[in-house]
Amino acid sequence: MATLTSKEWALAKRPVGMPQQADFSMKEESIGEPKDGEIQVKNSWMSVDPYMRGRMYDRESYVPPFQIGETLTGGAVGKVTASAHPDYSEGDLVVSMAGWREAWTAKPEEMMANKVPQTGLPDSALLGVAGMPGLTAYAGILRVADLKEGDVVFVSGAAGAVGSTVVQIAKIKNCTVIGSAGGAEKCNLVKELGADEVIDYKQHESYESLVGALKAAAPKGIDVYFDNVGGDHLEAAIECARPMARFAECGMISQYNATEPVPGPRNIIQVVGKQLRIQGFIVSTHTDMQPQFLQDMAGWIQSGKMKFEETVMEGIETAPDAFLGLFSGKNKGKMLVKLG
Amino acid sequence: MATLTSKEWALAKRPVGMPQQADFSMKEESIGEPKDGEIQVKNSWMSVDPYMRGRMYDRESYVPPFQIGETLTGGAVGKVTASAHPDYSEGDLVVSMAGWREAWTAKPEEMMANKVPQTGLPDSALLGVAGMPGLTAYAGILRVADLKEGDVVFVSGAAGAVGSTVVQIAKIKNCTVIGSAGGAEKCNLVKELGADEVIDYKQHESYESLVGALKAAAPKGIDVYFDNVGGDHLEAAIECARPMARFAECGMISQYNATEPVPGPRNIIQVVGKQLRIQGFIVSTHTDMQPQFLQDMAGWIQSGKMKFEETVMEGIETAPDAFLGLFSGKNKGKMLVKLG
Repeated sequence: MATLTSKEWALAKRPVGMPQQADFSMKEESIGEPKDGEIQVKNSWMSVDPYMRGRMYDRESYVPPFQIGETLTGGAVGKVTASAHPDYSEGDLVVSMAGWREAWTAKPEEMMANKVPQTGLPDSALLGVAGMPGLTAYAGILRVADLKEGDVVFVSGAAGAVGSTVVQIAKIKNCTVIGSAGGAEKCNLVKELGADEVIDYKQHESYESLVGALKAAAPKGIDVYFDNVGGDHLEAAIECARPMARFAECGMISQYNATEPVPGPRNIIQVVGKQLRIQGFIVSTHTDMQPQFLQDMAGWIQSGKMKFEETVMEGIETAPDAFLGLFSGKNKGKMLVKLG
Repeated sequence: MATLTSKEWALAKRPVGMPQQADFSMKEESIGEPKDGEIQVKNSWMSVDPYMRGRMYDRESYVPPFQIGETLTGGAVGKVTASAHPDYSEGDLVVSMAGWREAWTAKPEEMMANKVPQTGLPDSALLGVAGMPGLTAYAGILRVADLKEGDVVFVSGAAGAVGSTVVQIAKIKNCTVIGSAGGAEKCNLVKELGADEVIDYKQHESYESLVGALKAAAPKGIDVYFDNVGGDHLEAAIECARPMARFAECGMISQYNATEPVPGPRNIIQVVGKQLRIQGFIVSTHTDMQPQFLQDMAGWIQSGKMKFEETVMEGIETAPDAFLGLFSGKNKGKMLVKLG
């Protein structure tokens, strides 16, 4: 047992529009030995995710806002370095919400920490394809969008952590998949993951051009839209939707940094005549699917049906850069920070 | 048996924006005696409904567009005046889609005609509370919006044929109901139907004012929104929605006459965080509910739990006026034209 030091990131101030490096400040904390019921953990990986932008606003939401000066939180994987908890031993692998820091001491429940059984997967996968983003993709496409064999599926943000998993699940379910991503490199990745058609949205800056590309990729229309970006993509998906199409609204990253209200889809009236179902969801509502998810995902990874890409930045110092990179499209697949 | 003459309405040209009297033209047809398998019917009532506006555009939709010069169609009730069909006899009551005319001879299936059993209800109710608008309300609020006891329900167009039925079904199911309608007279009607709170939208012309009124009427938010109007009402409903709220999108009459694309709700991003479900529907998808609907509706009407209002115009000559009146809010409850 020993006291550790931990470099940690907090908000210096609330971002306005696109977050900046100066919105974050680093501090160094001393991490004490665990008291009764506590564990001491050294993080090896932390996650940065688009949803964190929402917590930087001071507003009511499904998760409370981050507080200025307090260490940020988010997904992390680490190893127990000392334990005063009967269920945890030194060396145990732990996933928690104690990200944005190098180490921590707390009761597991305070950090939503759980011990991870041996999966044969690399630790980092627990923050991606076999973690929260993976379950988001799984619950969203299978339950919220009610995917059926043979559906024509449109996925935006298809090179991201969630989107790339959605593409592959839909292919496993024998669907036709159209993925949208930004730039040739990401589009190649989406194609490699099995998408039938890929749209490079950076080649289609106007709505008219984007909807034209989607119509060309899906001449008979789409049955399912998995939305990670909102904006023009959502409007184009409504335009190309077949009757009774289902939309899983996972995120709208195109709007996360908006400082003015953004007009909604101008064709929303088509929801009536086409009998569309547009449904938002949050992964935490669907944790009942976790056991089946892990079983399916482990099988798919082992059989080579599910690939996953990671973009890794090194060291706690890079965490704000990694986070900012999400909004300029720097990541292919899951964006991670390697800590130890 | 005899030949009848029938005054009938057709489109003279496709309306641009708000329809005008001059968009319609009347003609007189000779209605022959029925040949084998046909019936001859004299209409006593015809219906005008907002959805008809959509059929006046020349575009692909869930129902084909009306053709210039061809007699319009829509809900009608009439009596068989001559029959060459084994299942129909003179005097039988018939509901059909052969509206916008005084009489017709055709095979029943060509006019989607059905013989109506004795219900004890006035004939006109078969075009309203016990007909297509009634089933629209019933399927929309109970199935699409998945109404639960105790829900806080917001209904727009609450004095209309569909909306006024929704208000009463929600009260029968022990919900708190907020209705929106235009003008004091309609608001009084909605209140008399049992709504807990009424919003006169003509007193709230800006979005900010409307959302303020809805927040005051539903301080804890809404669980269900039954949408007949779209536009600001939809945006206000999203703003006031509780987590997991369900929206039944029945119509968006505020946009039916728009000549330019109308911006969608600027707060559509809330669909994600609040996990909203926005679902459009068309009554014809839910005709499997018809038997239960008629049984429930007859019981509710007999026990005094379901009231219905009608706005009646007299004579086939008034049909375009009756239709135009839907868009200026001239109707309380179901708008009908009495023909015989």
